[in-house]
Amino acid sequence: MAEKLSVAVLGATGSVGQRFIQLLQRHPWFEVNELVASDRSSGQKYSDVCDWRVSDAIPESAREIRVKGLQDKLDSQIVFSSLPGGLASTIEIELAAQGKQVFTNASDNRMIPDVPLMIPEVNKEHLALIDVQRQNRGWDRGLVVANPNCSTIHLVLALKPIWEQFGIELAMVTTLQAVSGAGYPGVPSLDMVDNIVPYIGGEEEKIESETLKLLGTMSGDHIASAAITVSTQCTRVPVRDGHTESVSLKLRKPAGIEQIIDSFRSFQASPQKLGLPSAPANPIVVRDQADRPQPVLDRDAESGMASVVGRVRECSIFDVKFMVLGHNTIRGAAGASILNAELLVKEGFIS
Amino acid sequence: MAEKLSVAVLGATGSVGQRFIQLLQRHPWFEVNELVASDRSSGQKYSDVCDWRVSDAIPESAREIRVKGLQDKLDSQIVFSSLPGGLASTIEIELAAQGKQVFTNASDNRMIPDVPLMIPEVNKEHLALIDVQRQNRGWDRGLVVANPNCSTIHLVLALKPIWEQFGIELAMVTTLQAVSGAGYPGVPSLDMVDNIVPYIGGEEEKIESETLKLLGTMSGDHIASAAITVSTQCTRVPVRDGHTESVSLKLRKPAGIEQIIDSFRSFQASPQKLGLPSAPANPIVVRDQADRPQPVLDRDAESGMASVVGRVRECSIFDVKFMVLGHNTIRGAAGASILNAELLVKEGFIS
Amino acid sequence: MAEKLSVAVLGATGSVGQRFIQLLQRHPWFEVNELVASDRSSGQKYSDVCDWRVSDAIPESAREIRVKGLQDKLDSQIVFSSLPGGLASTIEIELAAQGKQVFTNASDNRMIPDVPLMIPEVNKEHLALIDVQRQNRGWDRGLVVANPNCSTIHLVLALKPIWEQFGIELAMVTTLQAVSGAGYPGVPSLDMVDNIVPYIGGEEEKIESETLKLLGTMSGDHIASAAITVSTQCTRVPVRDGHTESVSLKLRKPAGIEQIIDSFRSFQASPQKLGLPSAPANPIVVRDQADRPQPVLDRDAESGMASVVGRVRECSIFDVKFMVLGHNTIRGAAGASILNAELLVKEGFIS
Amino acid sequence: MAEKLSVAVLGATGSVGQRFIQLLQRHPWFEVNELVASDRSSGQKYSDVCDWRVSDAIPESAREIRVKGLQDKLDSQIVFSSLPGGLASTIEIELAAQGKQVFTNASDNRMIPDVPLMIPEVNKEHLALIDVQRQNRGWDRGLVVANPNCSTIHLVLALKPIWEQFGIELAMVTTLQAVSGAGYPGVPSLDMVDNIVPYIGGEEEKIESETLKLLGTMSGDHIASAAITVSTQCTRVPVRDGHTESVSLKLRKPAGIEQIIDSFRSFQASPQKLGLPSAPANPIVVRDQADRPQPVLDRDAESGMASVVGRVRECSIFDVKFMVLGHNTIRGAAGASILNAELLVKEGFIS
Repeated sequence: MAEKLSVAVLGATGSVGQRFIQLLQRHPWFEVNELVASDRSSGQKYSDVCDWRVSDAIPESAREIRVKGLQDKLDSQIVFSSLPGGLASTIEIELAAQGKQVFTNASDNRMIPDVPLMIPEVNKEHLALIDVQRQNRGWDRGLVVANPNCSTIHLVLALKPIWEQFGIELAMVTTLQAVSGAGYPGVPSLDMVDNIVPYIGGEEEKIESETLKLLGTMSGDHIASAAITVSTQCTRVPVRDGHTESVSLKLRKPAGIEQIIDSFRSFQASPQKLGLPSAPANPIVVRDQADRPQPVLDRDAESGMASVVGRVRECSIFDVKFMVLGHNTIRGAAGASILNAELLVKEGFIS
Repeated sequence: MAEKLSVAVLGATGSVGQRFIQLLQRHPWFEVNELVASDRSSGQKYSDVCDWRVSDAIPESAREIRVKGLQDKLDSQIVFSSLPGGLASTIEIELAAQGKQVFTNASDNRMIPDVPLMIPEVNKEHLALIDVQRQNRGWDRGLVVANPNCSTIHLVLALKPIWEQFGIELAMVTTLQAVSGAGYPGVPSLDMVDNIVPYIGGEEEKIESETLKLLGTMSGDHIASAAITVSTQCTRVPVRDGHTESVSLKLRKPAGIEQIIDSFRSFQASPQKLGLPSAPANPIVVRDQADRPQPVLDRDAESGMASVVGRVRECSIFDVKFMVLGHNTIRGAAGASILNAELLVKEGFIS
Repeated sequence: MAEKLSVAVLGATGSVGQRFIQLLQRHPWFEVNELVASDRSSGQKYSDVCDWRVSDAIPESAREIRVKGLQDKLDSQIVFSSLPGGLASTIEIELAAQGKQVFTNASDNRMIPDVPLMIPEVNKEHLALIDVQRQNRGWDRGLVVANPNCSTIHLVLALKPIWEQFGIELAMVTTLQAVSGAGYPGVPSLDMVDNIVPYIGGEEEKIESETLKLLGTMSGDHIASAAITVSTQCTRVPVRDGHTESVSLKLRKPAGIEQIIDSFRSFQASPQKLGLPSAPANPIVVRDQADRPQPVLDRDAESGMASVVGRVRECSIFDVKFMVLGHNTIRGAAGASILNAELLVKEGFIS
Repeated sequence: MAEKLSVAVLGATGSVGQRFIQLLQRHPWFEVNELVASDRSSGQKYSDVCDWRVSDAIPESAREIRVKGLQDKLDSQIVFSSLPGGLASTIEIELAAQGKQVFTNASDNRMIPDVPLMIPEVNKEHLALIDVQRQNRGWDRGLVVANPNCSTIHLVLALKPIWEQFGIELAMVTTLQAVSGAGYPGVPSLDMVDNIVPYIGGEEEKIESETLKLLGTMSGDHIASAAITVSTQCTRVPVRDGHTESVSLKLRKPAGIEQIIDSFRSFQASPQKLGLPSAPANPIVVRDQADRPQPVLDRDAESGMASVVGRVRECSIFDVKFMVLGHNTIRGAAGASILNAELLVKEGFIS
């Protein structure tokens, strides 16, 4: 790529916005040139308005950028959005209508029928929705591609190779989710010192519905939902980063535990084959030790872009159970959008 | 009761041993007169050898007691045991053979066929095993009664009213367990700061097997295992006290969510009817708030003797799911043994 | 006392307000009859508007009380205030002008010259300010008495016996403060998982100035500040309740370490002599173990009404250093106001 | 450097040993070829005996190395030691006697008069002790250089520029130390969930004595202790990595706060001037924000090799106070030894 593609980050001062800036700071294809935040920050230097919290200091390349407001015109062709729910739906659609390619981490547009909900390793064929989207909306260059919820993405990555090889009928899931998933200030410390909270508003519904779209199949101009039932119980635990999920599966075809472990280990998909810059060498990492995966030890596997699986074993009720863990603000949010953008560049959707 | 019954505590310097002493300090029926620990502590004052950690200071009544060694003769008729696994099996049997009434929190003897594994609210009829036990072993006064594992007891308390009214075929369980369950020093802090551990050695097997015995029925001289399959995934979380469990159940008869909640709320059993001193007024407490039960808020409900249930709702795979939480060293350990002893006193087994 | 005195709690839904209700629920002299909160809650049942967090459930006596708004007329003679800063100054003065006896935990009025800043064990003679206050303001029955900041109170309790016996010239203090001090939601969990924060806005100034007033002497119609210099560094740590302080003192007269420990242990003052219901038997508890005091083990000493001291030893720079720890929402807030009210009842100020 | 220098790591399976291996994995000058652990691990593959915990996986270069026992002959010229106290003193001296250059993180030899206790930015001139050491002990090539305790090093780095420019008479210090400082399993989680511990055995003595040696001056054949008095209070807090210290200083010459901040910011020393590979560009990083430094945000500044200072302000008792924070197992342990070795290579002591 002769010259880097200019990108804008929406919601640039929030937790996920900061992660976008951090992950993009030495990206081979993309260059962050525009940072968009609330109108209150507009016109000020990013370093003056951002309470930076994802590492020790704001990348030099971002410090001096003058923040734009949500109404300001953007020059970049590519837009990464981490806008809060509610706000995102309208703005993202408007930007796409203006011809921008929008990659969104917000939940608003995920379940809209003509918006691809994309994990490049899982459902690349859903990119066919982009033609539908453009036709529906009369766009020629613009597009909106969403990535799933931070818990859904690691669950579905782990399900994918099993889904392909053996089929899955039922998935019972209990999550132990990190506090960064709620942003800053987010979860009060009085809820997280010597405590867990067995509830995250809206999270269970997201996992249960998004999984069906992600594993669904293109059928004409829409995605036919996958024939799988997911039941979830979400909890918040005193962990900074890294969602852990306890998963039990009823399969459609018999499978030995070793076969399932092999399917995890050998899993390779488009991002790996296309050599996308942010693609993990191994999208699913398997740990053999009895007490893994653990957030502090495993969330940074493959630079936070892998799902890490462990304790794969027989379930006395269903067929197999295991734990899966992944970084919720890297592969679970900003990194997911970036990988989606990389895929679309490679596939020729960006112009 | 004119005079209090003298009791001995085995493993008196450990976490559960300390809890026994704390809970018994103003008990209306029992008086702690003998404290037994490793031979190394033998002969010394309890306050000199115990690293007391369950409250701000050792109860006055225990401070000056001279600790006995495991070989020393005991004068008390009733023995509470929190010996470590391995050690417990032999010593407890020996004491019972000497005519002592032994109430054990250790796991060693729980699954021995002629040892009642007792939750007074759940399986009081298993006390019939005591005759079997005495006959098998030639004991006239001695007996051994075990209480279940700290996770099992809260699970099974919550299952009991549903089991009675609707039947249960399958129970899928993921636990989030407190660090006090591993004693002191127990779990290293490097495992619990910004982390969870998805494994507790032996715990899953205990829950899966003990539940079958607890819900089983007396059949001649033994317990016939209950026809229920339990599948568990145990995790350790940075919580001091209070195990939380995510539970999904497949029932045998149809039941509405309101019926299930009613069965929890109206649940009363022998300890309540007999007015046992340590019995919770409500063995199962139901929380209506969406984000309960939580360890810091709910573990001390009914002085730590209740199981607290919340988020009772339909499961998209099975019939019902909910969270249950309980104090793991009170109702889950020392308090469980004490309630067992109270039941046996009331039922005339102690002499 | 034939009949209990009726009291109102201002700021009843906040953290300290909840603590007032909890501590007063079985108080021998006081009965909570009025709960005041923001106008938005006015007219509703307390249990419907309060997100109760200090124990498992709201005391029965408070559940059904209809919350009053800040403008509503109060019937109770005694008012406990935990209003937020800013709001407190005006409302508390207005209530006193109406003839109420106001005991405030808010910081607004603490340093007002004619408001006694009271720790009954430390500066009971400052009650002489009440005459000044009434004269200044033309009140006959009303009064406002403040208690100090939650860190100040435990520091000054520990300083008092040394101050009396040996004099103190300099006090260097570093605090490690619990998150409950910031209320709910208060400190974000992202600041407290695997982290400490070396700053608490305004806290250092409060400790440094309040100490001088508390140890000061009545001089005519005002308090002459004590001749002591205090230097503080405040930090927030992942602890629910219990502020810990590292203290080094330069004394005015030589003192051996044993003499200082004796002065702590033998410290008794008015609340103990008068037998006030909430008075700790020992206002200062001394721990001998090398690793005490610790929040989980010591914050509840004397029902949370004591300051717990440990590691008393020589300082290589000054004369003595030690750690002091105390419960920040009991003795450090609600309990402090209640003890002040008890003192004033006993001394005949309440009518 | 044409070829990398071969190094051995002693205590290779411990926390600091793992950090050595991690930090050395892509080192431009050094190559880890020998890993030494307890005799029990001897002969086995490192990956089979090490419970790796400093990142997600053992570096490939170390996985297959066969672990040597403490008695085995070493081929490497350079030895990094993280042996436990007691064991270290003899073995390190023996290796030096064999002609090895030993860089030790153990405390045993730190205060031995002819062993340089080295922070390259602070006391490079103490390298003159190596001639003394060799002469005393009859060594020609061998040497032992120690680095200070993990709390001392960050304290003294922060003191150095002030010491040089204004002199320091007194330093009052309270530390808030991370659990990794105690190794694994180390501090029990029951001590660190909702708690702090105000005591770390031996730590205060180390800081108070090591500082005097580090700031001391070569005087003939020994170090004359610096004329500074240090008083410390050490606490353990629930933080994984990063020791935070509250420091108040009495200076010898007057200094404005801005002058002190300037002295921090402009501090450059030998490692920076010599361009040592592990040298931080800025050994002291200054944070302007009121609530910094914080462990999660600042411990990794300059790849964990800097001391991060904040809240620099006047002290009402002494002249200046501030907070300093640094990574305790990088700059505070393994990284410190590596920087020492780099300095000695550059200065021609390694052959």
